[in-house]
Amino acid sequence: MLGWSLTEARINTLRGALDEHSADALWISSLPDIRWVCGFTGSNGLLIVRRESLHLITDGRYTTQAAREVKQARVHVRGANLVETVKSDRILESCRRAVFQSDHLSVAEYVRLQESIPGIEWEGHEGLLVQAVASKDEQEIDAIRAAQRITEAVFEYLLDWIRPGMMEQEIAAEVIYQHLRRGAERMSFEPIIASGPNSALPHARPTRRTLSTGDVLLLDFGCVKDGYASDMTRTVAVGKPDDEARMVYDVVLEAQLKAIEGAHAGMASKDLDALARDVISEKGYGEAFTHGLGHGIGLQTHEWPRVASTAEYTLPPKAVVSIEPGIYLPDRFGVRIEDLIVLREDGSDVLTLASKEWTEI
Amino acid sequence: MLGWSLTEARINTLRGALDEHSADALWISSLPDIRWVCGFTGSNGLLIVRRESLHLITDGRYTTQAAREVKQARVHVRGANLVETVKSDRILESCRRAVFQSDHLSVAEYVRLQESIPGIEWEGHEGLLVQAVASKDEQEIDAIRAAQRITEAVFEYLLDWIRPGMMEQEIAAEVIYQHLRRGAERMSFEPIIASGPNSALPHARPTRRTLSTGDVLLLDFGCVKDGYASDMTRTVAVGKPDDEARMVYDVVLEAQLKAIEGAHAGMASKDLDALARDVISEKGYGEAFTHGLGHGIGLQTHEWPRVASTAEYTLPPKAVVSIEPGIYLPDRFGVRIEDLIVLREDGSDVLTLASKEWTEI
Repeated sequence: MLGWSLTEARINTLRGALDEHSADALWISSLPDIRWVCGFTGSNGLLIVRRESLHLITDGRYTTQAAREVKQARVHVRGANLVETVKSDRILESCRRAVFQSDHLSVAEYVRLQESIPGIEWEGHEGLLVQAVASKDEQEIDAIRAAQRITEAVFEYLLDWIRPGMMEQEIAAEVIYQHLRRGAERMSFEPIIASGPNSALPHARPTRRTLSTGDVLLLDFGCVKDGYASDMTRTVAVGKPDDEARMVYDVVLEAQLKAIEGAHAGMASKDLDALARDVISEKGYGEAFTHGLGHGIGLQTHEWPRVASTAEYTLPPKAVVSIEPGIYLPDRFGVRIEDLIVLREDGSDVLTLASKEWTEI
Repeated sequence: MLGWSLTEARINTLRGALDEHSADALWISSLPDIRWVCGFTGSNGLLIVRRESLHLITDGRYTTQAAREVKQARVHVRGANLVETVKSDRILESCRRAVFQSDHLSVAEYVRLQESIPGIEWEGHEGLLVQAVASKDEQEIDAIRAAQRITEAVFEYLLDWIRPGMMEQEIAAEVIYQHLRRGAERMSFEPIIASGPNSALPHARPTRRTLSTGDVLLLDFGCVKDGYASDMTRTVAVGKPDDEARMVYDVVLEAQLKAIEGAHAGMASKDLDALARDVISEKGYGEAFTHGLGHGIGLQTHEWPRVASTAEYTLPPKAVVSIEPGIYLPDRFGVRIEDLIVLREDGSDVLTLASKEWTEI
C-alpha cells in the first residue's frame, strides 16, 4: 500500500509549516492530505501535527482500519464528534497558536472549533500543503503510471468492442467493469462517454443515446489504483464523420503536442495554457475552447496546480498534470485529447501511452 | 428528469428563509441544494435567491447543460470565477443583508466573498434548507423507490451468481455492472463487499480476499436513478458459518424490526436509535454496535437527519431514512441489515422489499 509512509520529505514539510507560521500545531482536515501524511483512508478523520507527535482522530467505524493503516501517528477513537476527542485526549494541550486549512474547513466548523477549544490563536491558511503534495516522488509517479496502464488497456479493449447501435450508458458500464476486472480500486470519476452532439458538452454524462455511423465519440475516463488516479481522454470517430471533425481533431492534437513539447517545471501555469490556446485561437476556434488546459492529479483526480490562463503561479517540479485541450461546437460535436505528464526541470515525461492517431472504428 | 421543478412548496421554503433571516438574498453553495431548487446537475455552480428572481451561476463547461436543465432561474455564465460573475452581472445589487450556508462555504471562500463584494452584511446559517429538503414529496419518494428496485434486482441476481472462490473485488465489479445495465446513473457509493473477518469492518472496501465456505458475507450497495439514491445492506452466509453468526443475525434483525415498528415522524432521533440499540445492548452486544442507526437519503446518499444517539432533533415528516443496526466482532465477522423507510405521522412505510430471512448461499 502506497501513500502511508511518512517519508523524510513529508516530515520536513510538516516541520517547515510549523516553523513558517510559528505555530504549535497544524489542524489538517483535508482527507487526501491526511492520507498523504499518515496513510489513513477512512471517510472521517482529522490529523493534528504537534512538534513532537502526530495524532489521527477518527470515529468508531474505523477503529480496526485505522489500527491497520496508521503506523506513524497515534490513533484516537472516541465518539462521533472528533473535536470532542481532541479536547478529551488533550491533544492541543499547551498549544497557543494553531494553523488550520482554511479551504478545508467550513465556516460552521470553524465557529464550533473556536467555541469548543478556547484559548488558542487560530490562523487559517489556504493551500497549506499543496506545493508539497503536488511534487510527487517516484513511487507516487509509478502508482499513477500503474493506474494509467489499466485505463489504456480498457481503451484498447473498447476500440475492438464498440459497435454502432450501442448506448452511451452501456459503454460506460463496460468501461467501469473492465477497469475493476483489471484491478482498479474504483473509478477516479464517472466515465464520460459522449457521442454525436453530446460530445460538445465538455462534462457530459452518459445518456441512452445510441451510436450511429458518422458520430464523433469522446471517451474520458480513469481509475484509482493504490490510491492514485489516472485520467485520459481520446476522441474517435464511428465510421466517417463530417470533414470539419477531422480538421478540428488535427487542431486539438497540434495544440496538445505543442503544450507537451513546451512544458517544464518552473514555468508560469498561464504560459503553459497559452501554448495550446494560441494554436486553437489562431485556427479560429478560441471561443470553442471553454475550459483550462489541465489540472494536477495524484491522490485526487483534480488537485493543485491548475493549468489555466487564470492561474497566477508557476508549476512545481515533479507535479503530474493533465494536458487536455478541447474544441466544442454546440449541437454538432466536440473533440478533446488528454494525456498526463510529469513536469521536470528540463521538460516533461509523458505518462500516457495510448495512441492519438485519428481513429475510425 | 426529476428534481428540477420549482414547486410551490420549494418557492415557499425560499421565501420563508428570506423572511426568517430578514435577508435580501440567499447564497446557496451546496450543489445538491442547488439541484433541489432549480435542477442544475453540474459540478460547479452557485444559486442566488433574490425576492423577485433566481440566478444560477456556473462556468463555461456547463453553458449548454445549464440551458437544458434550468428553466426557472436566470443562468449566468462568464469566467471560471463565479463570484466575479455575481459582481459583473450585479446579481446582488441593492442587497444589504445576505444569508449563506455556513456548512457549505469554506473559511477561505468566505473571506474572499467578503473582500470581493463589500457593503453586504453576511449571516452564516447551518442547515439552511435541510428541513425542507428532508421532507420528500411523493415524486421524490417514487424516485428513491425506483433506485431501490434496481438495487434489489441486483441483490436477487447475486444470490444465484455468487460462489465460493470468488474475490470480493470481482463481486463489487459485478454489482456495479449489473446496476448500470439495469439503468442506474451511477452508484450512490462504492459497494461494500466484505467477507469473513472483513465483514467486521463497518466501512470495508472490497479486497482480493476470496469467499470460503463458512464465511459471513456483508453486502451494502445502492445506486442513483434520476438523481435519487438507494442504499441497502444484507448479510448472508456462504455455506454454514459458526453458530454465533446466526445468533448475532437474529439479534440485529430483531433490533431492526423493532426500530422500523416504532418509527414515526415527530419522534426524537435518539429515541429511534434507542429502539434498536436497546435490543442489541440487552443481548450483550452494545459495544459492538459502533455507529448510529441510520441517515437521511435523497439527492445525497447521506443527508440530514441522522438517526443517532447523539442527534438532538426530532425527525421530520416524509423524511426517508435508513435503519441499519450492526454488530461487529473484530477479526471474526460482522452483521448489518439496512432498509429505507419513509417517516409518516402515524408510523412508517418500508421502501425496501428484499427478503431479510437468514440465507445460506
